Amino acid sequence: MTIGDELLYGQVVDTNSAFLGQELAKLGLRVRQITSVSDRADEIVTALDLARQRADVVLMTGGLGPTKDDLTKHVLARYFGTELVLHEPTLHHVEGIFARYNRPMLEVNRQQALVPANCTVLHNALGTAPGMWFEDQGTVFVSMPGVPFEMKGLMTDEVLPKLQHHFQTPAIEHVVVQTVGLGESFLAERIAAWESALPATVKLAYLPYLGGVRLRLTGYDDGQPNLRARMQALLPELYTLLGDHIFAEGEVKLEDAVGRLLTARGLTVGTAESCTGGLLAHRLTSVPGSSRYFQGSIIAYSNDIKMRELGVQASTLEAYGAVSEATVREMAEGLRHHLGVDVALATSGIAGPDGGTPEKPVGTICIAYADAFQTVSRQFSFDRGRQLNVEYTTTLALNLLRLSLPQ
Amino acid sequence: MTIGDELLYGQVVDTNSAFLGQELAKLGLRVRQITSVSDRADEIVTALDLARQRADVVLMTGGLGPTKDDLTKHVLARYFGTELVLHEPTLHHVEGIFARYNRPMLEVNRQQALVPANCTVLHNALGTAPGMWFEDQGTVFVSMPGVPFEMKGLMTDEVLPKLQHHFQTPAIEHVVVQTVGLGESFLAERIAAWESALPATVKLAYLPYLGGVRLRLTGYDDGQPNLRARMQALLPELYTLLGDHIFAEGEVKLEDAVGRLLTARGLTVGTAESCTGGLLAHRLTSVPGSSRYFQGSIIAYSNDIKMRELGVQASTLEAYGAVSEATVREMAEGLRHHLGVDVALATSGIAGPDGGTPEKPVGTICIAYADAFQTVSRQFSFDRGRQLNVEYTTTLALNLLRLSLPQ
Repeated sequence: MTIGDELLYGQVVDTNSAFLGQELAKLGLRVRQITSVSDRADEIVTALDLARQRADVVLMTGGLGPTKDDLTKHVLARYFGTELVLHEPTLHHVEGIFARYNRPMLEVNRQQALVPANCTVLHNALGTAPGMWFEDQGTVFVSMPGVPFEMKGLMTDEVLPKLQHHFQTPAIEHVVVQTVGLGESFLAERIAAWESALPATVKLAYLPYLGGVRLRLTGYDDGQPNLRARMQALLPELYTLLGDHIFAEGEVKLEDAVGRLLTARGLTVGTAESCTGGLLAHRLTSVPGSSRYFQGSIIAYSNDIKMRELGVQASTLEAYGAVSEATVREMAEGLRHHLGVDVALATSGIAGPDGGTPEKPVGTICIAYADAFQTVSRQFSFDRGRQLNVEYTTTLALNLLRLSLPQ
Repeated sequence: MTIGDELLYGQVVDTNSAFLGQELAKLGLRVRQITSVSDRADEIVTALDLARQRADVVLMTGGLGPTKDDLTKHVLARYFGTELVLHEPTLHHVEGIFARYNRPMLEVNRQQALVPANCTVLHNALGTAPGMWFEDQGTVFVSMPGVPFEMKGLMTDEVLPKLQHHFQTPAIEHVVVQTVGLGESFLAERIAAWESALPATVKLAYLPYLGGVRLRLTGYDDGQPNLRARMQALLPELYTLLGDHIFAEGEVKLEDAVGRLLTARGLTVGTAESCTGGLLAHRLTSVPGSSRYFQGSIIAYSNDIKMRELGVQASTLEAYGAVSEATVREMAEGLRHHLGVDVALATSGIAGPDGGTPEKPVGTICIAYADAFQTVSRQFSFDRGRQLNVEYTTTLALNLLRLSLPQ
């Protein structure tokens, strides 16, 4: 249960529930339902009543802030028939945080140390609102702050260990295979026979994203040993069917997979970006340790910078335009020489919403890869709005790198 | 209602609900609850039974794909006591899509044109799965694909106009004020008296994000005219209390506000990025029309590129290190001269998880702003994990630009 009017108004996207689902799955706990409710006391109570009917544990986030619209703690005290009392260790912790940052402590901050008398307080190392654990007629209720990084810390350090201790759960195993470059229905057609032959206790899900599909096998305990190994044994045939559309197993992103390839080959990389405006470099550098292979980039929005910093020829721009395979090839080659990197990626396109022409409509995208031996370029055409056009272009470029790297 | 095991396992974050909430609020429709359920028929049916008790309209997304785990259409046919029939216009549409992309059409794609006999089919211009509108005992049920860009197109073109026509709703008005640089509790303390004096029909919510807080006033119809104007009249006092912590009204991002300032002053901008790895350029260029003021960037992860491309002195790096105010000042000034832009932003920091030292722990961040008249730099220290450290740094840098631009 995530609590807050901002979720219902759509002013905040609920990312907490996905994190909770991932972590609970690792313990073999199946999420029965995710519910987002408003900050109204009556709606929180109704949702609690329904949740306890369908689940053994109810995790809540949100509504624990210091401001007037945060009601969760008061609602829970009433729901469990008790009142708020001061929790001294929490008060010391809150005082310590304010002392460390040398900031004056306000009365609303002191009130963060008030908790329902019958809960077990869970220490929130990263913030001022503590977590709260209740047990009531066989159901566990846990309340955590809505701020994602505080909730994640509390969940990892306090809640998951307590849940593991409290529940005895059957095994569920997940095996995830990451693919890129094939749409959902083509993928499904290609692996239809394999899918039909899956054991009854293994379920396949298609999780499409922009540019590819994640395949998730979920195996349920069938009383036989080695569930995970038996699921892994299903994969060789999948590799035969899908070839290099598979780029990784497990929760690995395309930029992680690319980083591993660059690291294994001892190659450095850089980007020359027009339409992607830095997102390609950001994806490459979002990987911890990427400074081992990522050197730098030149973002060249203007033609002037394309010529001066990347050595694109004026005649190329004139003859083919900034959005052309000829231009991105020169951008990639120019970046290699200018920054002295082994491998370069370049992008140029019309991200939109403006700038399209009849010959090159919004969504016309060119990408190039260059290394010491070859330059490879591609042109694409799609339009899913500025943001997705840019995202999709970065996925296409990363995949071009993956497929073009020397063996 | 969002449908799909991937949501409960946390393998996909539900962004559809936030979009629906935003759009419904504009029509004055209040979202009572958001529910995410699995692909199991019995759980979908239970959730439908509960949803119709609390709401006049139930919007569903997901489970309409061409693969075996997509059950929604079959469940709805049974739930509304009918069977699936072929919808010819949808079949022509699907055939047209495959013809346009010159791809072979599969049997599973043909089945996308099967719909429950008693629904009104809603045309999905952007994909193969149509939307479906049901009316049953006074409740409206709408089923849409889970792919966000298809759902958004259907919602905008088909569902919202039909909802507007179907329901007569009371007025709700939202006024959003964007602030940056003050934490939630400090903000709350500063505006406490103003908040207490708000009319009973106006509710204030604090929506914190990394680096600031959005304030949302929600006004409910009180039978008096000019609700929105009366809410706007509450703002001048807020400006007095918060000064330049307010950067915009409405759903405006910091990068939009910065873009407007640059456009108004006719200035060009570029970035010199180390720890932010391109995200600062990406945020600046995520604004449609940003090519009017954004020229380019140099991402300099290695010290070599910092010296060669940005003119940072070896002696500066040696004396102060790459993460220092001295270095980011030289980066910003170097970028201005190197790319010939009016205004430059620079970042350098230890994003983590590795690379920290006792003097400069992970989360040590330096930023600088340079224009023709001044160079301004700041050092910060925080650690919320690599991704958030990078995001927070870009917010601090954009805000430094906003506050430093010549008047």
